Amino acid sequence: MKVKGEIKPIEWCGSYVDLIDQTQLPYEYTTVKIDTYQKMGMAIKNMLVRGAPAIGVSAAFGVVLGAISLVGEQNWDNFYSQLVKIAEYLKSTRPTAVNLKWAVDIQMKLVESYKDKTIKEAVKALEENAIKILNDDISINKNIGDNGATVIPKSARILTHCNAGSLATAGYGTALGVIRSAFANDPTIQVYADETRPRQQGARLTVWECVQENIPVTLVTDGMCGYMMSKNMIDVVVVGADRIAANGDAANKIGTFTVAIAAKAFGVPFYVAAPLSTIDTSIESGEEIPIEERNKEEVTHINGKLVCPECVNVFNPGFDVTPADYITGIITEVGILKPDYKNSIIKAFI
Amino acid sequence: MKVKGEIKPIEWCGSYVDLIDQTQLPYEYTTVKIDTYQKMGMAIKNMLVRGAPAIGVSAAFGVVLGAISLVGEQNWDNFYSQLVKIAEYLKSTRPTAVNLKWAVDIQMKLVESYKDKTIKEAVKALEENAIKILNDDISINKNIGDNGATVIPKSARILTHCNAGSLATAGYGTALGVIRSAFANDPTIQVYADETRPRQQGARLTVWECVQENIPVTLVTDGMCGYMMSKNMIDVVVVGADRIAANGDAANKIGTFTVAIAAKAFGVPFYVAAPLSTIDTSIESGEEIPIEERNKEEVTHINGKLVCPECVNVFNPGFDVTPADYITGIITEVGILKPDYKNSIIKAFI
Repeated sequence: MKVKGEIKPIEWCGSYVDLIDQTQLPYEYTTVKIDTYQKMGMAIKNMLVRGAPAIGVSAAFGVVLGAISLVGEQNWDNFYSQLVKIAEYLKSTRPTAVNLKWAVDIQMKLVESYKDKTIKEAVKALEENAIKILNDDISINKNIGDNGATVIPKSARILTHCNAGSLATAGYGTALGVIRSAFANDPTIQVYADETRPRQQGARLTVWECVQENIPVTLVTDGMCGYMMSKNMIDVVVVGADRIAANGDAANKIGTFTVAIAAKAFGVPFYVAAPLSTIDTSIESGEEIPIEERNKEEVTHINGKLVCPECVNVFNPGFDVTPADYITGIITEVGILKPDYKNSIIKAFI
Repeated sequence: MKVKGEIKPIEWCGSYVDLIDQTQLPYEYTTVKIDTYQKMGMAIKNMLVRGAPAIGVSAAFGVVLGAISLVGEQNWDNFYSQLVKIAEYLKSTRPTAVNLKWAVDIQMKLVESYKDKTIKEAVKALEENAIKILNDDISINKNIGDNGATVIPKSARILTHCNAGSLATAGYGTALGVIRSAFANDPTIQVYADETRPRQQGARLTVWECVQENIPVTLVTDGMCGYMMSKNMIDVVVVGADRIAANGDAANKIGTFTVAIAAKAFGVPFYVAAPLSTIDTSIESGEEIPIEERNKEEVTHINGKLVCPECVNVFNPGFDVTPADYITGIITEVGILKPDYKNSIIKAFI
């Protein structure tokens, strides 16, 4: 199944958002109409939309939808206090990705600046700003891609974990943006996509995106990285991130750290690709990043079918944190940050 | 679903073998009647029976079934030459596990010693020897278990990969035998079972075995080991092996080496539990162990359903090799072998 044109996971349609339902890929390519902030909250929670930047953009529109629902309010304080609650709800839907908080906070700051204007004007400004956040995300990702392509060797065999592609962003992708830019220059690169259990974003989404653009891709299971690296089958690892601390520690989909450990053992460069909005300078280290524990059915069931005995205990952290000293570089829209990250991150924000 | 009494994956019924169909677990507990050597070959190939020791025992009975099919032969040379072909066929069904070759070779050596006797006597001797191999395997595993239990700390949280349990042997198990013996002494131990993609022997079989005996077990996905070890959640790793080289390099189910790399990074002891029959002293190092590549559908389909876009490339090695310097000790029936393995392995065979 191929889709025409660029993949647009999030599309603003004037009064509602069309989201690609990522839980249905690769079987079906369908969009879901999200016309209330509650639906947006559930879409984020249930991972119809996922990936830190995509969640951020979606949440920005979630605030817009919340504001639209309050447009009949006569009193600014009532409008504002209800919108604050909506913002808190949206931020609570997934705890790890910082872009969610980042985008909602930007929107709330904007709305505060409209307190002397009409509610209608505030809603209009929120809408325009959400569209700007969406468009900025795509251009930021193209910059990330171009910056990252400079560190991808000729004919590289690139391992990636989870999906940090168009589907994880407003478009183009972060880690997969690096791969897209590298492939545009060098069609001999090859991608190895980790399946990424439990939710298989690698098998379902990264493979699907590569197939869309004829980027050579090989699917592997999550446990194979050690073997492949020991056999000199991987030249570089590129992954996305959900939150990066001020010291460079990077939270990403569970399993990423295991790949990083193998990469370090075999001297394979390990890059994290993410926009500056993923860097949370308010926290010193990855220790402070909350790790979402998700429900056990993600592990015990695949496509609705049980894959183990019932009633087994399950541990299902959604993310892990790769410490900074496992990371060769953080590829951002302003360049590739290198250790010591404490310094390079401060400089990137100047 | 609980089964009464000990789990017996392989049972000799006088003229045929009853095998537990492990591809149906944990959904159904059924046995399959294997009454020809061809059926035994297919059962090994299609993993109705799997696990190095279990394959060895099954193949020993495969030779018996082959010999029974030739019992009408009048001429010893005809009988023998046909049995050699059957032996070669059985050995070809899976390349990595050395126990397969080991058991078939023992049977063929035995039959050679009967060349001056009747074919009937040879068949009888083969049958008795296969039963002995089966019974020996169980008592060997109990010794492995008791030896291994001595290195399991009080209230240990033990990570295991794949299934090296009763189902992987004639009974009791190797890695899971160590866990069984440890649990008998200390009911406060806990098991973390890696799912073990692609075929999910951990989720399907190890969890099932632990549930049978009320051993506390938590299912995790293969990528979680790095995170869990970084959070000090794992005290010791115990896995089985399919073939161990003379230098201690150990082949086991794909994903094992990745766990070993994480264990080394965090100083978690990593033990391999296996009978001496798994040690192939004819090869110097793991480099010489053939790694079976299995079909792509194991990765692309789960329970018969596609989990990724069709036509994707897949890399599906069935095993990996953990180098000796990642292994804290090799738990055998004669004791725990320690580095330098070249010496300790030689001594173990004296």
